[in-house]
Amino acid sequence: MSTFNAHDIAKAAKHAFQDAQLISASERVKALHEIWKSLQTNKAEILQANQEDLKAAEIEVKAGDMSESLLKRLDLNKGDKWDSMLQGILDVAALPDPTGSVSYASELDDGLELYRVACPIGVLLVIFEARPEVVVNIASLAIKSGNAAILKGGKESNRTTTLLAKSISEGLARTAIPELYVQSIQTRAEVSSLLELDDYIDLVIPRGSNSLVKNIQNNTRIPVMGHADGLCSVFIDQQADTTKAVRVVLDSKIDYPAACNSVENLILHESTVHTVWPPVAKALLEANVKLLCDSGSLNALKVLSPQPPHMETLVAPSEPSSYDTEHLNLTLSVIVLPSLQSAIQFINTHSSHHTDSIVTESDEAASIFCRGVDSAGTYVNASTRFADGFRYGFGTEVGISTGRIHARGPVGLDGLVTYKYMMKSKAPSAHVVGDFGTGKKQYKHRALHAAAVPFLK
Amino acid sequence: MSTFNAHDIAKAAKHAFQDAQLISASERVKALHEIWKSLQTNKAEILQANQEDLKAAEIEVKAGDMSESLLKRLDLNKGDKWDSMLQGILDVAALPDPTGSVSYASELDDGLELYRVACPIGVLLVIFEARPEVVVNIASLAIKSGNAAILKGGKESNRTTTLLAKSISEGLARTAIPELYVQSIQTRAEVSSLLELDDYIDLVIPRGSNSLVKNIQNNTRIPVMGHADGLCSVFIDQQADTTKAVRVVLDSKIDYPAACNSVENLILHESTVHTVWPPVAKALLEANVKLLCDSGSLNALKVLSPQPPHMETLVAPSEPSSYDTEHLNLTLSVIVLPSLQSAIQFINTHSSHHTDSIVTESDEAASIFCRGVDSAGTYVNASTRFADGFRYGFGTEVGISTGRIHARGPVGLDGLVTYKYMMKSKAPSAHVVGDFGTGKKQYKHRALHAAAVPFLK
Repeated sequence: MSTFNAHDIAKAAKHAFQDAQLISASERVKALHEIWKSLQTNKAEILQANQEDLKAAEIEVKAGDMSESLLKRLDLNKGDKWDSMLQGILDVAALPDPTGSVSYASELDDGLELYRVACPIGVLLVIFEARPEVVVNIASLAIKSGNAAILKGGKESNRTTTLLAKSISEGLARTAIPELYVQSIQTRAEVSSLLELDDYIDLVIPRGSNSLVKNIQNNTRIPVMGHADGLCSVFIDQQADTTKAVRVVLDSKIDYPAACNSVENLILHESTVHTVWPPVAKALLEANVKLLCDSGSLNALKVLSPQPPHMETLVAPSEPSSYDTEHLNLTLSVIVLPSLQSAIQFINTHSSHHTDSIVTESDEAASIFCRGVDSAGTYVNASTRFADGFRYGFGTEVGISTGRIHARGPVGLDGLVTYKYMMKSKAPSAHVVGDFGTGKKQYKHRALHAAAVPFLK
Repeated sequence: MSTFNAHDIAKAAKHAFQDAQLISASERVKALHEIWKSLQTNKAEILQANQEDLKAAEIEVKAGDMSESLLKRLDLNKGDKWDSMLQGILDVAALPDPTGSVSYASELDDGLELYRVACPIGVLLVIFEARPEVVVNIASLAIKSGNAAILKGGKESNRTTTLLAKSISEGLARTAIPELYVQSIQTRAEVSSLLELDDYIDLVIPRGSNSLVKNIQNNTRIPVMGHADGLCSVFIDQQADTTKAVRVVLDSKIDYPAACNSVENLILHESTVHTVWPPVAKALLEANVKLLCDSGSLNALKVLSPQPPHMETLVAPSEPSSYDTEHLNLTLSVIVLPSLQSAIQFINTHSSHHTDSIVTESDEAASIFCRGVDSAGTYVNASTRFADGFRYGFGTEVGISTGRIHARGPVGLDGLVTYKYMMKSKAPSAHVVGDFGTGKKQYKHRALHAAAVPFLK
């Protein structure tokens, strides 16, 4: 599709965003309920389209052009997926309004009040692969937080997402929210054109593979919120408790190996190679985890008698690149290091600054690790798998960010808002800067306590 | 200079940042006092170098290769510039520590505590033009907030900034902070190379002309915090008070016309062209402000008797481009519009989303304007010139951001921090995700009240 169309789409989204600024939070909640109703009404038709997407995808899988796992993610009728997608809309509707709250308020002078107030960001461009329910999730989050959105799903789910988007539009049409508040696009060419339109689009949220995220980061000036890598580590400290080590490492690796918050690098303090490491290795091998070991961790296993299970098939020497690899399966890279300090340096060099955990009984080591490791999450005696918006208590998750600014780690609805400053003078002749200065008025900067801006209606 | 050197500089900065994570806030304050001492000690030498920079610059000005205003900004010995630069270090030292505070805390399960804690961002690359004191300002802010910094000044201030940077290093050498925590570089080629190193550099802060900022935004994947444009508006509402209108417009335009928070577009509600506009125009013309008027505002002045002063010389018809021009001098573009709604649309289209003000006695119009205008600052009966970190009460200013995420509007020390999540399990056998789920443990998400992370030492 041409640049001209992308421009129209982006401009329409920006106008819809601006036109919706006076719409109340309760109207946005109403919109979510209306979308829920439309989806219920259109359920049969949508699931029929989903079946067609699935049939087409099965042909591609047979031809070797699509992965089995992508196919699985397409299916909207699997298990309770449909019901939980719909429940998700009601859950988002029930969350507290993320806009309107005041985070800083000050009376700069008698009668001159300044408020920093949470507000939506603007136009979100959301690009995702396969899972069609993401259309509904993200549309709900965008509407709840007052942002307009342009959604682009994978081509393999086109039939499904088109009908989901239609139901969203039908729901919106029964509210005061502009029709073009949530738009969906179909082609990659449109995405490329949209990524150039930083006058209209304020934030890009890619949800999908590393290559998708990196490709987008390389091709836009618009801020991107997402994570390209999830290379997490667990460090077994000198003072680690063996039971805790076994449980934390095992859960971090096997609970869901394909997730970004699964552990990929295990670091052993050298004093633990003959104590904590053997039972940890045994548990991992029993769970069918392949271990890529440096010489220290490998030799410690070789001298064991009896040998741990599957030594021949599951244990192999590591290579330097092993420690920079996001395995995303039942493989773990293992290295022995001489100190807590060297472990922190190793993590800061090799991890993706996502989530890293220490197993230790030492309060001092825990404190040094949490301060020294430069990651979005630093944990003590807890599985890296806890890095998740729902587990953190955000009610829902926009995504996980490995960026450092705006939002870091699991991102809830807060990640879709920014703030603006509002100021009002109540003085009889307004407030001007020229009245302040040496020999003139001085700023008072009296803290105000306000949950909301008092002069907004 | 070669890419190899830029890589070394950036890598050294990242390592200095990581190595400094265990350094206390009080040591960072000590460093600021040591830098203050070094600058005092080296004052004569620095001011001598500044004289040499000035002499070289004067030659360039005479040859027409440098502007007079750039020359003025170079002079460190002018007025109280030296003293206020040094006082600035002590002021920053005295501000509250921006790191370590907890903004979210939750007990996810019995004995599993999660804290979101403010922490430095990492390595800042600060690029600025002319004013050599910015080296000291920014180094102070970076050290106070725990960030490492790479500083690049204008080539016209090379002799001065080299010695300022040397004093900073001397001061740091008397503390536990790594020597390469603050580095300075000299050439544009090094900047280009550094802009590619997003593995090491976390935030770019350009302080200078629009073209500098835009050029940087176009040439890096690293987040950029700055403002490229300052195109502010004042809207005279139907219910404007004339005295307030005159004062707000005049101050917004003439207090400091070269500043980004000065007004460039004046929008008149059509009902005010024969009432509020004539006295506003008279005051502007008496202050020597050139008015670029649309036909409505021009005709309203032409029918006046007596004519306002300087009508022949200072009033001219506007062109469509007038309303997209940041004049940065005593020029104001004026337009008449039929409604508050059309004024908001006009501002959202033509302003740079920096700061916009309404003059009105109507609470309803004030509320609609503040919600509807999509800018970092929306004011009621107050001069746009209030958009400033010091005036907002932040104690100091990192800059003003027209970006929407991370930091928006005037940015204080808060703009140099991000957050990370720290989690600790106190359970006898650690915490793992596999223990939670249907038929198993449920998350508790009990709010915790903590000003700091209790397990950090």
